[in-house]
Amino acid sequence: MVNEFDLPRRLAAEALGTALLVATVVGSGIMAESLTKDVALALLGNTLPTGAILVVLITILGPVSGAHFNPAVSLVFALKRELTPRDTLAYILAQIAGGIAGTMIAHAMFALPLIDASLKMRTGGAQWFAEGVAAFGLVATILGGIRFNRAAVPWLVGLYITAAYWFTASTSFANPAVAIARSMTNTFSGIRPADLPGFIIAETSGALVALLFMGWLLSGKSWASAAMKEARP
Amino acid sequence: MVNEFDLPRRLAAEALGTALLVATVVGSGIMAESLTKDVALALLGNTLPTGAILVVLITILGPVSGAHFNPAVSLVFALKRELTPRDTLAYILAQIAGGIAGTMIAHAMFALPLIDASLKMRTGGAQWFAEGVAAFGLVATILGGIRFNRAAVPWLVGLYITAAYWFTASTSFANPAVAIARSMTNTFSGIRPADLPGFIIAETSGALVALLFMGWLLSGKSWASAAMKEARP
Amino acid sequence: MVNEFDLPRRLAAEALGTALLVATVVGSGIMAESLTKDVALALLGNTLPTGAILVVLITILGPVSGAHFNPAVSLVFALKRELTPRDTLAYILAQIAGGIAGTMIAHAMFALPLIDASLKMRTGGAQWFAEGVAAFGLVATILGGIRFNRAAVPWLVGLYITAAYWFTASTSFANPAVAIARSMTNTFSGIRPADLPGFIIAETSGALVALLFMGWLLSGKSWASAAMKEARP
Amino acid sequence: MVNEFDLPRRLAAEALGTALLVATVVGSGIMAESLTKDVALALLGNTLPTGAILVVLITILGPVSGAHFNPAVSLVFALKRELTPRDTLAYILAQIAGGIAGTMIAHAMFALPLIDASLKMRTGGAQWFAEGVAAFGLVATILGGIRFNRAAVPWLVGLYITAAYWFTASTSFANPAVAIARSMTNTFSGIRPADLPGFIIAETSGALVALLFMGWLLSGKSWASAAMKEARP
Repeated sequence: MVNEFDLPRRLAAEALGTALLVATVVGSGIMAESLTKDVALALLGNTLPTGAILVVLITILGPVSGAHFNPAVSLVFALKRELTPRDTLAYILAQIAGGIAGTMIAHAMFALPLIDASLKMRTGGAQWFAEGVAAFGLVATILGGIRFNRAAVPWLVGLYITAAYWFTASTSFANPAVAIARSMTNTFSGIRPADLPGFIIAETSGALVALLFMGWLLSGKSWASAAMKEARP
Repeated sequence: MVNEFDLPRRLAAEALGTALLVATVVGSGIMAESLTKDVALALLGNTLPTGAILVVLITILGPVSGAHFNPAVSLVFALKRELTPRDTLAYILAQIAGGIAGTMIAHAMFALPLIDASLKMRTGGAQWFAEGVAAFGLVATILGGIRFNRAAVPWLVGLYITAAYWFTASTSFANPAVAIARSMTNTFSGIRPADLPGFIIAETSGALVALLFMGWLLSGKSWASAAMKEARP
Repeated sequence: MVNEFDLPRRLAAEALGTALLVATVVGSGIMAESLTKDVALALLGNTLPTGAILVVLITILGPVSGAHFNPAVSLVFALKRELTPRDTLAYILAQIAGGIAGTMIAHAMFALPLIDASLKMRTGGAQWFAEGVAAFGLVATILGGIRFNRAAVPWLVGLYITAAYWFTASTSFANPAVAIARSMTNTFSGIRPADLPGFIIAETSGALVALLFMGWLLSGKSWASAAMKEARP
Repeated sequence: MVNEFDLPRRLAAEALGTALLVATVVGSGIMAESLTKDVALALLGNTLPTGAILVVLITILGPVSGAHFNPAVSLVFALKRELTPRDTLAYILAQIAGGIAGTMIAHAMFALPLIDASLKMRTGGAQWFAEGVAAFGLVATILGGIRFNRAAVPWLVGLYITAAYWFTASTSFANPAVAIARSMTNTFSGIRPADLPGFIIAETSGALVALLFMGWLLSGKSWASAAMKEARP
């Protein structure tokens, strides 16, 4: 699949998209936490903007770069041989750089120091399992969506993350670049830098399991129906 | 209607979909209940994820198995002769097994014992009537959606359940497999095992009434207009 | 425009749709009010189900009856000569009967007396002006939607009412049949029977102003451009 | 691009759309503030109606006037030479007049004095940066949406503003006409008249940066792929 956009534009799209995604996650977390003491309400004020911006960003940047905004997703497409190793590496670097810029943009808007290491502990087996489930679901959503209703993918990803913010115990980071960026904010959406490796390993593992499982599930026609079709004159 | 996917894949889709649906219902209930003391806010934190994940799951798994995730729905399609008795039974078993797995996944993510009998009482005539209304509306939504706008069905089901969580006194289980799975969690979304039979009977009854009523309503052209068409040369 | 469904089915669709709409409005109001003391949260728990069910009901019943569920809307289509006087009267009676049944269904689900006169005062010039604005916006939404994006009408109506619940001081009844039904519940969404005439007059007036204004706005091509086209060889 | 609607109808559409948009922003703010003391909940009660009404208004009025409702957006289309200087000026005046009417409509519905200068301070570098980001994102959303999925633009704008109400420190006015109108209400959504110039400059700057950046990003095919296509026989 040849893309009509050149690599600089595709990387700019990945960086811009990840930056605006992280600015939304971090910024809405700061806004929500500053306005209420009810943590469920704060999470709601974090969830709706994140889901909404994902629909927007994937729609307007997807045709340029694929709108991965997520190293685990780029890895999946690399393994499906839809992204070259060189481009995959470039995508991941653009996502990480964009994500960090996103944290800085959010902090600047709220008059906070541009970078601040998080003190929020997110670790342990249950959290890692939750991140694995979160990334499994995200990649299953993307692969199933591309297969059956490509135009709906921006909506599906936005809705999936809306759900996953609440049903996973980790509030579903599901994205190593976003996790790195969120380690640099000591606000509602932060994560301790020390807790990053566990999250990144769990996210990548969940994504790979989804690639394998959905590869089997979507591999199409049954042996019997294929045989029947062959048998037709 | 022959499906291109073989039975194992279709059953895997039913089990996976019901598991993720229940993991969302139970998991978001646990999350919401842990974050706020306002029960309306907790129900909102339970509603939005459930509605959102339904859109996702029906879109990505519907083309594989039909995305019933619900024995009452499979029964309706069996009575419409769109699912064989053998497949119907297999679907229902896959849904129940998937649902139970979903409760266990949610519990594992939140570091709770994998299975725990619910103590939440949900019984009595008003609750049963509410479950009947809930299931009637769900099946009416599915049958009307399939007839007039098949592509919208994932959205319609997600939106219907979003509404039904609030307008029915039972918060709209409307699904025997999900009810069974929810009897195994002693959290926000639980139901006492002893209360299951009443719910399952009410849900099945509501679904059957909807099948009859919508069968009549959608049976098409009026006698007069049909006669007029026949009368044309 | 001849409809393929006969009048009994169309009236059944109007009655069922209005009943489920009112059951949602009244039922979610009861649910919300019982779960929280924060009135904004209760209104939110009333808004989301109402918007969601409107998308569902208009999608699955619109092809049968047009899915008016609203005497003011039926009157608009009567004046546009898309509904005969006889059918308009029958529609309005079906909507009123369905609406009252909706209140009774909601009350039965929540174990309340089936009918109970509301004591909630909703009257005065500001409230009437708000209802006029609400109905103006609803009819403008319907007429503009039908003209430019008919498939989106269910969504547009659901979203419009979602907004209007909050931006109008009256929480946007915008529907005489629903207003009558809501006068029979002494819960969150009620209205005193004595206040009905003011609301119904305001709603009808707003609808008629919208019919006139949108008739002019959408009447199409400018004199100049029409003249230019005629002048082309 | 010749529009089939004459200028009076286009200006009426811009004025009506901006009026209903502002009536929603101001009215839902008044409603929310009157119902709860939790500011996050009030912002949520302000966000959902605003996002919802944008989808509606852009769908039903976009085919008439383009549905800018925003001088910064009209300026962008003027610079893209899709709107003449004369029409641009007329659009902006219609938007400002419509916006002010919207504030008056909201006040009339809630029985407040029709005009009331806001005392709410919104100023300083962080707020201005936030408004710049907000307007950048809005124009990027519009230009990207028009390029890749024109039918989705109403949804994208509604979702973008839903997100931007929360992720920008200024709650994303992103619209000089709406800012002017909001300076005339001393309620939840107000802004001091003295703070208008900073907001308007920031919004216009953000819009222009987005025009430049998206112009580059979407300028299409890479040199290499263009050269390859030329080389084909």
